[in-house]
Amino acid sequence: MSVPTACKTVLASSIAKPFAEELKDGVKQLEKKPVLVGFLANADPAARMYADWTGKTCEELGFGYELREVPKERLEEAILDANDDSAVDGILVYFPVFGGTQDQYLQQVVAKEKDVEGLSHIYIQNMYQNVRFLDEAQTQKSILPCTPLAAVKVLEYLGVYNAILPYGNRLYGKTVTVVNRSEIVGRPLAALLANDGATVYSVDITGVQKYTRGEGLRHVKHVVSETDLDLEHAAKISDVIITGVPSPDYKFPVEFIKNGAVCVNFSSEKNFSPEVKQRASLYVPMIGKVTITMLLRNLLRLCVNAQERKHAAAAKT
Amino acid sequence: MSVPTACKTVLASSIAKPFAEELKDGVKQLEKKPVLVGFLANADPAARMYADWTGKTCEELGFGYELREVPKERLEEAILDANDDSAVDGILVYFPVFGGTQDQYLQQVVAKEKDVEGLSHIYIQNMYQNVRFLDEAQTQKSILPCTPLAAVKVLEYLGVYNAILPYGNRLYGKTVTVVNRSEIVGRPLAALLANDGATVYSVDITGVQKYTRGEGLRHVKHVVSETDLDLEHAAKISDVIITGVPSPDYKFPVEFIKNGAVCVNFSSEKNFSPEVKQRASLYVPMIGKVTITMLLRNLLRLCVNAQERKHAAAAKT
Repeated sequence: MSVPTACKTVLASSIAKPFAEELKDGVKQLEKKPVLVGFLANADPAARMYADWTGKTCEELGFGYELREVPKERLEEAILDANDDSAVDGILVYFPVFGGTQDQYLQQVVAKEKDVEGLSHIYIQNMYQNVRFLDEAQTQKSILPCTPLAAVKVLEYLGVYNAILPYGNRLYGKTVTVVNRSEIVGRPLAALLANDGATVYSVDITGVQKYTRGEGLRHVKHVVSETDLDLEHAAKISDVIITGVPSPDYKFPVEFIKNGAVCVNFSSEKNFSPEVKQRASLYVPMIGKVTITMLLRNLLRLCVNAQERKHAAAAKT
Repeated sequence: MSVPTACKTVLASSIAKPFAEELKDGVKQLEKKPVLVGFLANADPAARMYADWTGKTCEELGFGYELREVPKERLEEAILDANDDSAVDGILVYFPVFGGTQDQYLQQVVAKEKDVEGLSHIYIQNMYQNVRFLDEAQTQKSILPCTPLAAVKVLEYLGVYNAILPYGNRLYGKTVTVVNRSEIVGRPLAALLANDGATVYSVDITGVQKYTRGEGLRHVKHVVSETDLDLEHAAKISDVIITGVPSPDYKFPVEFIKNGAVCVNFSSEKNFSPEVKQRASLYVPMIGKVTITMLLRNLLRLCVNAQERKHAAAAKT
């Protein structure tokens, strides 16, 4: 089978580069060097690789980084200590630890003021509700979950977001299939894309949901509705296919991909086989490096939020 | 097979009775009648039965109750509206709605000030950390998750808690097996029992964990450790066996039950076969009615907390 050269493979490192430059500048403008603490409480080689990557990126861009290895039974206490430690600006936990709902509990133990992943409930709720600030005075910006945010930045880089359209409507007319509906990536991503004007088919093993932007009672936010489409029919009308299935055995069926579609994989496993290039116009095999820059961007924002709070408190006294 | 009469079956209604009397008195002392809103967004007959029960109990005990039926796509907005509505004192969602992690997300959308189930992250974290108050001044009591709390009250009623021992140590010397380690019942229950002095074997499909009370860095709290015991060996040394497997097919193996053990089932399915009576000394086939009284006890506490906050704010101005 011959692979046409029309498909362009785009590497995460190229996409991450301009953000990395921004981060270097941003760090210099802070009152002190931000310190990120990573918690490793498992023996998962993928988690350790991610930890090494984070450390390396932090060093390159001028952030402090400390890796703390703790037995999983001590992790909750260790996070609580870091929450209370003023020398720590950001906290990152390398999951899975126990797996399942216990990990979801641990995620929420991280103080929202230090949650660089943007997985605290209030951040996710604000994202679903399309709320951009944490306070009524609008001095504290809300944080976006870093993996969905990275996927958005990838789509911006690839030109899927149309910069001619007004901000907040730049995906208008685009159809996207997202294979994964987890609470930490797939569902937030579907909501983000719908908030920006796309029609999104969100797929998991239970079926397909359709996300569009609607007029919420409170804010303009996404609307979820029933759909009769299955994966095949959703994919075949999609301009963009995004996969995030955490299994080495899963491969997205090449025959479902529309000619010229944009294909992006955010799973640490390869969800597309090499034949994807026979159909796709643009293909991004993994986005981890973009995710790490988004995580540091969140850290920067958390530091700015903290400075704002400090100054506001000082002005009061 | 003959069933000896030595085993006493105890019904939840008997256990709930004294709490119901307490609640009737408590309601009368509030400044206004508390209103509980229940959200039903599924067609599950068990959820509707639970909703009917809640309504009936509310009426009997002097609480206001309103059932709101909403399509599941509108549930998040409906909860947010109730959060902001000063006429609503307590909110209860009848799960499952979407199932899985999306339900865990929805649970956290309920404002903690109105969360009668006690499932807001901060309540669960406080319980695990053995923290009893929400504020440093100790005017706002934390809420306990209602099903684990109900299980504790059942064990108190059955005399498993020994009132001669000091408060906080009344399970000292007792061994308990809990079959279920969900974040909303099984794990909190194991922690609560360990905090009161028991050795708890917490069982789920991934294996057995051992919970004991330790000396935490911050507070005296439970410690989780590895164990070589499997379900059979844990159960055979247990004074109490508590089951909560949400499946009609699951039956706890009778041959694992120590003679004279106390057996309690909190699942809506019958996790013990009738033969349990050949081994157990006390058997509680279901605890739903106790759970509802605990839920209303939480509502009462939330109302008292709200009154305290109102008075504190008035005193300031």
